[in-house]
Amino acid sequence: MRMRKKKYLDERLDACRLLIRPRCSDRHYQTAVKEKEYFDLPALFGRDGELWLEIGCGKGQFIVEEAARHPDILYLAVEKSANVIVTACEKAEAAGLTNVRFVNCSAEYLEKYLPENSVGRLYLNFSCPFPKTKYAKHRLTADHFLQMYARLLKPGAAIHQKTDNMHFFEYSLEQYSHGGFWLENVSLDLHNSDFEGNIETEYEQRFAAAGAPIYRLEAYKRP
Amino acid sequence: MRMRKKKYLDERLDACRLLIRPRCSDRHYQTAVKEKEYFDLPALFGRDGELWLEIGCGKGQFIVEEAARHPDILYLAVEKSANVIVTACEKAEAAGLTNVRFVNCSAEYLEKYLPENSVGRLYLNFSCPFPKTKYAKHRLTADHFLQMYARLLKPGAAIHQKTDNMHFFEYSLEQYSHGGFWLENVSLDLHNSDFEGNIETEYEQRFAAAGAPIYRLEAYKRP
Repeated sequence: MRMRKKKYLDERLDACRLLIRPRCSDRHYQTAVKEKEYFDLPALFGRDGELWLEIGCGKGQFIVEEAARHPDILYLAVEKSANVIVTACEKAEAAGLTNVRFVNCSAEYLEKYLPENSVGRLYLNFSCPFPKTKYAKHRLTADHFLQMYARLLKPGAAIHQKTDNMHFFEYSLEQYSHGGFWLENVSLDLHNSDFEGNIETEYEQRFAAAGAPIYRLEAYKRP
Repeated sequence: MRMRKKKYLDERLDACRLLIRPRCSDRHYQTAVKEKEYFDLPALFGRDGELWLEIGCGKGQFIVEEAARHPDILYLAVEKSANVIVTACEKAEAAGLTNVRFVNCSAEYLEKYLPENSVGRLYLNFSCPFPKTKYAKHRLTADHFLQMYARLLKPGAAIHQKTDNMHFFEYSLEQYSHGGFWLENVSLDLHNSDFEGNIETEYEQRFAAAGAPIYRLEAYKRP
């Protein structure tokens, strides 16, 4: 089901100072990503710093809290739906954050805008599980995505993933092991574990209230 | 708590035709395993065949059913407690099995008796989780064990592990990824999955009746 376009969406998007809307609607992203147009981070943020990424930021509850906790880190929050990234962006502006920018494009295009070995951490929070095998290639832990992450991440940097979807988590565990990532801090019941400092997403708050487990892992690119 | 020695244990052990009791009580197994005394499988079984292993067979419910289902495979079921392996052995004899032998020794000694690249599959069923970090090296998925399994297993062969202990499973997932194994068929709720052909252990039957999940995985040695 496609979400209905929000009222005044274009006006709200135009008003977002923290929003980047790159040209990434080309059908053939494999060709498009070869023509590099790297983001100029010092120009974007007014300073240099370690770059962390969230892919699929949704309405931004996680990234706004995360960026507030780590003012020294520069964040790019990626989300392909203009309908929801606009809310994330407005939240960050209301919070007065200067260390986060929102990128409205599909994850496939990131390699066009970011060089290899440039990302210090990647968050995947409650990504769509695409339960049908037919759509498995759209899962954010499918082979081609893990290969891209392995290129973008610095050696020793990690993917931090959370999901409530058991089968997507099972699939992701297998994928990381095939992709040569090291698993650390695997939790099969995050909210009843001794993990500290968890930042909940909107979805996580609603879902966890129902009592089902949240799964979490860290997958490290070998140093 | 040490189990009390069973009544008539020695007599029962002596009567077990399928039992092997190697000298493996040496304190320094690292020295002992260097002096190889490889089992002569064709002599033991009266024929040659693919060798599969279970470490920690307990009272043998799993291995007896497993060996009955695969008469072409040769099985070694390893268990360090004489108190329980005697029951396993008696079960297999009562079932008239000819393709399984029971090895009463600690897993650490297996390299003394089996050559590299000789094992087609390894089962770890409900191994003791040793929850305290102090005893982590005793877990059957600790580094030194995985390194031994990697030597004993044929390229492309797998470890099949089941447990009800969430933290032991989390730990094991991390360990396999560090040890260079590929994870496949990870199940975070085996009894509610579409996995077919599961053979339940005694422990699994009692535990699963309580409704908590059983975890399962396959970890492959890279071909």
